[in-house]
Amino acid sequence: MSAIKVIEREVLKEKPQGPMGFGQLFTDYMFTMDYKEGKGWHHALIKPYQNIEISPAAQVLHYGQAVFEGMKAYRQGDDIILFRPEENFKRMNLSNARLNIPEVDVAFLLDALQQLVRLEQDWIPAGQGESLYIRPFVIATEPYLGVHAATEYQFMIILSPVGAYYGDDQLMATRIYVEDEYVRAVRGGVGFAKVAGNYAASLAAQTRASELGYHQVLWLDGVEQRYIEEVGSMNIFFVMDGKVVTPELNGSILPGITRKSILQLAAYLGYEVEERRIAIEEVMNAESVSEIFGTGTAAVISPVGSIRYQDREVVINNGATGPVTQHLYDEYTAIQEGRKADPFNWCLKINKR
Amino acid sequence: MSAIKVIEREVLKEKPQGPMGFGQLFTDYMFTMDYKEGKGWHHALIKPYQNIEISPAAQVLHYGQAVFEGMKAYRQGDDIILFRPEENFKRMNLSNARLNIPEVDVAFLLDALQQLVRLEQDWIPAGQGESLYIRPFVIATEPYLGVHAATEYQFMIILSPVGAYYGDDQLMATRIYVEDEYVRAVRGGVGFAKVAGNYAASLAAQTRASELGYHQVLWLDGVEQRYIEEVGSMNIFFVMDGKVVTPELNGSILPGITRKSILQLAAYLGYEVEERRIAIEEVMNAESVSEIFGTGTAAVISPVGSIRYQDREVVINNGATGPVTQHLYDEYTAIQEGRKADPFNWCLKINKR
Repeated sequence: MSAIKVIEREVLKEKPQGPMGFGQLFTDYMFTMDYKEGKGWHHALIKPYQNIEISPAAQVLHYGQAVFEGMKAYRQGDDIILFRPEENFKRMNLSNARLNIPEVDVAFLLDALQQLVRLEQDWIPAGQGESLYIRPFVIATEPYLGVHAATEYQFMIILSPVGAYYGDDQLMATRIYVEDEYVRAVRGGVGFAKVAGNYAASLAAQTRASELGYHQVLWLDGVEQRYIEEVGSMNIFFVMDGKVVTPELNGSILPGITRKSILQLAAYLGYEVEERRIAIEEVMNAESVSEIFGTGTAAVISPVGSIRYQDREVVINNGATGPVTQHLYDEYTAIQEGRKADPFNWCLKINKR
Repeated sequence: MSAIKVIEREVLKEKPQGPMGFGQLFTDYMFTMDYKEGKGWHHALIKPYQNIEISPAAQVLHYGQAVFEGMKAYRQGDDIILFRPEENFKRMNLSNARLNIPEVDVAFLLDALQQLVRLEQDWIPAGQGESLYIRPFVIATEPYLGVHAATEYQFMIILSPVGAYYGDDQLMATRIYVEDEYVRAVRGGVGFAKVAGNYAASLAAQTRASELGYHQVLWLDGVEQRYIEEVGSMNIFFVMDGKVVTPELNGSILPGITRKSILQLAAYLGYEVEERRIAIEEVMNAESVSEIFGTGTAAVISPVGSIRYQDREVVINNGATGPVTQHLYDEYTAIQEGRKADPFNWCLKINKR
């Protein structure tokens, strides 16, 4: 594909002064590219952030052919880095394959993303825990009501400055509700892919958990409704007998990039790590579960203070953030924010001009 | 809600002369209405069919909060009828509830649809097997990347004239492939609802079946991968020992309106009908299975000529349309097209002016 055309905007937006929240505020520019069968991906463009115009018959609106990714850019002193962006574009291609969406060119998109973030560098907030959230996504735009893999798509990247997930960088333990009626995913389905429909399907359980006073849903497997899969839209980890344990990838769990990174980091820091099947009873009955935490791009690490399954609630580490959780959080965010060296080569430094 | 405002277009499109296909050609007008939390559904409008403008952060594009329906308007001599439209709007509310989308007002939409179809009556084709396909749908439009039930939606109805599914009204038997790896839905999931994500998730299996030379996928249940659920995007029926049998609704099967109507019609015509769990082995081994057919709005009834499961293929009724299938098809379409009386009060006659 040829060079990326840039359409400049005349007036830039005001940058936020106060709290930024998450995913509500967008920067000045977006990246777009189109796909048409026979022509491939083409028309790569950086243009002012703006509404898109699509047919009311566009397939994404009817049949949900849509995938997305989420990643972050950070300031490291005077530098700007992207955290493992290649992993996200590779995973997008796994999602694309599952939904019969054409593959994207990872190397090209890595370049395009760097060009976009370079242009928008003033939007990356500088405070601790703050970052620029990056949302690449693909939607099927072909205007046709037959159920088939669309012949036209649009790929976009939009950017949103986000505040610290936890104020003052103090981790806050959450209460989780084990969902034993609604099911998120089953082997043979699309649970391992970052596809739009998975999230809509999760809302009912999340709403119920909230109404019952819990922060997040813990999902069980779809076959036996017994084995732990993930929590909310994060992966989940247990500290058991000092080991860092997480459910093994089984086709219905999202292969989180934070999950993968935390497994690497924990091993590097000397913890024994384990990926295996974990039954809910094992967690509810085990004296040996000393900590639980979720992992994901938005919150990075989210400690779990209590877990409710059917009629029983178990409090974990007296409802507070445990030492292993805190250790992993501190080391991980220190790498992301450049306060410590990056032994894994996770941070991709962007040339600022 | 107040009366529906109509914005007229200056120039009408040319009506199609040749083959219309399915869902590719749209009429002159569309119906839209908006939802905002605190305000409810409002701004009901009939306007020229046109592209819509939405934020690139609109939740439907990321999290798949979208439901739809499909129904048809027919000419019956000088009359125009809608076929069981109330059933579709009621089912839309089931889908809405599952995805935390606000309920729509069924009575109001029945009126709105009649007003729209009255305006577009010249678009209803007159040939046998032809009809005006009606697509109501709801999408989440709130521009926000947090995963939550959106606070803003748009409801739309678009119309597409469609040709006879089978040329010359001769039913054509299809070959179906029993999918034993990919899974469409599982109890506790969203299989019973007409939600966008279900269709994207089905594409991979449909593509594989096509490559192997089959027309449609037959889905098994997600838990045991043993019990028959539905075929392609249709419900499925078996004629077994003279009885008309279909899988019982179990939470992962779509409650088809054609399915429900065919059950009623078959009983009325004197067939014994049964809704129950049907294992795939039962069908593959039974001498007693004399016919198989699918039901859905688009094809109405689609006979199955052969069924392949793992290494074995069973030919049904010598690969031809069976007598019960043909009988039901003839009687059902005769009611839809007004060639026979409608003992069920399924046809809602529209006041033409």
